[in-house]
Amino acid sequence: VTLLVAVSGWEPEAWAKRLRRLMPGRTVLTTDGQGLFEGDDAALAEVRYALVWKPRPEVLERLPQLEVIFSLGAGVDHILGLPQLPDVPVVRIVDPDLTGRMVEYVVWQVLHHHRRGPEYARQQSERQWRERRQPAAHEVTIGIMGLGVLGQAAAVALGRLGFRLAGWSRSEKQLPDMACFHGTEGLAPFLGQTDILVALLPLTPETSGILNYKLFAQMKREGPLGGPVVINAGRGGSQVEADIVAALEDGKLKGASLDVFETEPLPPDSPLWSRPEVVITPHNAAVSDPEALTRQIAGQIAAYERGAPLKNLVDTARGY
Amino acid sequence: VTLLVAVSGWEPEAWAKRLRRLMPGRTVLTTDGQGLFEGDDAALAEVRYALVWKPRPEVLERLPQLEVIFSLGAGVDHILGLPQLPDVPVVRIVDPDLTGRMVEYVVWQVLHHHRRGPEYARQQSERQWRERRQPAAHEVTIGIMGLGVLGQAAAVALGRLGFRLAGWSRSEKQLPDMACFHGTEGLAPFLGQTDILVALLPLTPETSGILNYKLFAQMKREGPLGGPVVINAGRGGSQVEADIVAALEDGKLKGASLDVFETEPLPPDSPLWSRPEVVITPHNAAVSDPEALTRQIAGQIAAYERGAPLKNLVDTARGY
Repeated sequence: VTLLVAVSGWEPEAWAKRLRRLMPGRTVLTTDGQGLFEGDDAALAEVRYALVWKPRPEVLERLPQLEVIFSLGAGVDHILGLPQLPDVPVVRIVDPDLTGRMVEYVVWQVLHHHRRGPEYARQQSERQWRERRQPAAHEVTIGIMGLGVLGQAAAVALGRLGFRLAGWSRSEKQLPDMACFHGTEGLAPFLGQTDILVALLPLTPETSGILNYKLFAQMKREGPLGGPVVINAGRGGSQVEADIVAALEDGKLKGASLDVFETEPLPPDSPLWSRPEVVITPHNAAVSDPEALTRQIAGQIAAYERGAPLKNLVDTARGY
Repeated sequence: VTLLVAVSGWEPEAWAKRLRRLMPGRTVLTTDGQGLFEGDDAALAEVRYALVWKPRPEVLERLPQLEVIFSLGAGVDHILGLPQLPDVPVVRIVDPDLTGRMVEYVVWQVLHHHRRGPEYARQQSERQWRERRQPAAHEVTIGIMGLGVLGQAAAVALGRLGFRLAGWSRSEKQLPDMACFHGTEGLAPFLGQTDILVALLPLTPETSGILNYKLFAQMKREGPLGGPVVINAGRGGSQVEADIVAALEDGKLKGASLDVFETEPLPPDSPLWSRPEVVITPHNAAVSDPEALTRQIAGQIAAYERGAPLKNLVDTARGY
C-alpha cells in the first residue's frame, strides 16, 4: 500500500520520514516542493492515500487507485477548488493540537483589543501614562462566524473568561451560553450585537468576500470598546482588504487582527502593514504540527483498513 | 453609624455616592483627593468603618471608634506600611470582578509572549512576512510567584489553555496540576523550569526587590521561546527596573510585561518605555470596579453587624 504526500509551497520530505517511521512497510512517495512528481506513472498507480496541501490536479489525476484524500490543513478550499477532483472521500484535519493553537490565537487577539492593546502601545511609544476606561468582559460581546470545531472551541475559551457570546453559521445550530444566528437573515441581528467579530469561516462561494464594508457597517455602534473590531483567522478570500482599510479610515472599524490575506504573503505595498490598530501575523494562527498530524492520519488509515468509517469527512457539495 | 472614604490620588465622591445609595441612613464622609480631611474631629469620632486607598496616617489617627479598615485595592502595603496603624482588622478586596480582570491581563500577556507578539510586531513594522517556530502550550512552563486568590485564578485559566504550570509561594501550598515550590530553598528549582514568570506578589520586606538580576539569571535557559520572560502585575516595589533593563540587554531576559513600577507614573526618562520587547500598561491590570466593590463592602458590613466574622482578613504580621 502506497502513500503520496503532495504539497505545494514547502518540502514534504520531513513529513514522509515521519510517516515511514509510523507506518513501517508502506511506501511513501512525495512530490517536490512545487507539487510536481518526477517519477513514472507505475509508482503513482499504487497510491491509495494522498496527504495533500494545495495539490496539483495533474498529479491527483494520475492516481487510479486513490481511495482517500487527507487535507494537511484545517481548511479544504485548496482541494475542493481543483478543476477535476477525484471522486473519493476527503478527510479534514481535526486535531487537538491544531485546535488548541487556534484557541490561543483567538483568545490572544480578543484580549489584545478588549484590553486596548493598540492604544496602550501608542501611548508607550509616546511615553504617556494614561489609564483608559476598561469594560468588564461581560460588557463585551464576541461574535463568532463559523461554528465548526474551531469556532466552538474558541467560544468555550472566551466564555470562561466572562465574555458574552454570539454565533453565526450557515445552517442552524444550538450551542450553550451563546446567542446563535444563521443564514442570510441571521446576519444583521448577529452583527448588531457584536463588538469583536471573530471569523473562522471556510472559504466557499457564499463566504468569499463576506467580510466587506457593508458587513462592518452593520456591527454594533456605541459599544464599550469605542468601535467594532474584526479578527480573521479563517481564509483571506473571505475578506475585502480595501474595505477593511476604508472602514478603519472612516471609523466603521476600530481595529483588526488578520492572520490571512487575499494574497499571501501579504504584498509589501499593502496599506495594512503600517496601520497601528491592525495586528498582522503570517498565516500561522494554527499551524499544523507535523508530528501530531502524521500520528493522527496514520491512526485514521489503520482504523479505515480495519473497516471503521472515516471520521471528519468533508461535505464536498457544501464545500466544507 | 458613619463611614469614611479616605483616599489619595483620586476623588472619593463617586464612591461615597454609591455607598449612600447602597446603605441608606448611614453618614458617609470623604477626604479630599489628597487624602486630607478638612472637617472637625467630632465628625470623625463617629467613624466605624474606613474604606481606604493610600490613606494619610494623620486622618486614621483621628478615628477613635474605628472598627474595620477596608482596602480599596487588592494589595494592602499602602495600609500596612503606615507608621501608626490603628489596631483594628484590615480587610482586603476579594472580588470576582477584580479577579477576572487580573486573569484577563495575565492570559493576554502570557499569550503575547508565547505567540511571539513582540517579534511579529517588529516584522510588521518592517513589512516582513516570516513565520517563526511556535511551540505548543504544553512545551512552555508558566511559573507563578504568589499563589493567593489572583495567582490561583490565573493558574486555572492558563492550565485550561494547555500550559505547564509551576508555582512559588512563601509558605507551602499544594495545588492541582501544578509543581509547587516554597520558601527560599524552593526558588532555584522553581525558576529553573520557568519559561514565563508571572509575579502576583504582595509587597512585603521579603518580596521587596525580589525580581532582580540574580533571580532572572536562574530562569530556564534553552527554553522553547528563546529566552525567559517576566510579567509583573503585583507591586512595582518587587522589581528592580535597572536589573530588568540589564537582563534584557545581555539576553538573560527575552521580554517583559510590566503593569507596576518602582515609581508611578513611570517617569518619562525611564529606558523601559522605548524597548520593543517590553509591554507597559499604567497599573491597570485589575482596576477595582467601584460598583462591584462598594456592593461587596456594603454586604460585608451588613454581615459583620449581624455578628458574622469578617472575611478576607489581612494577616498584619505576615504583611498580606
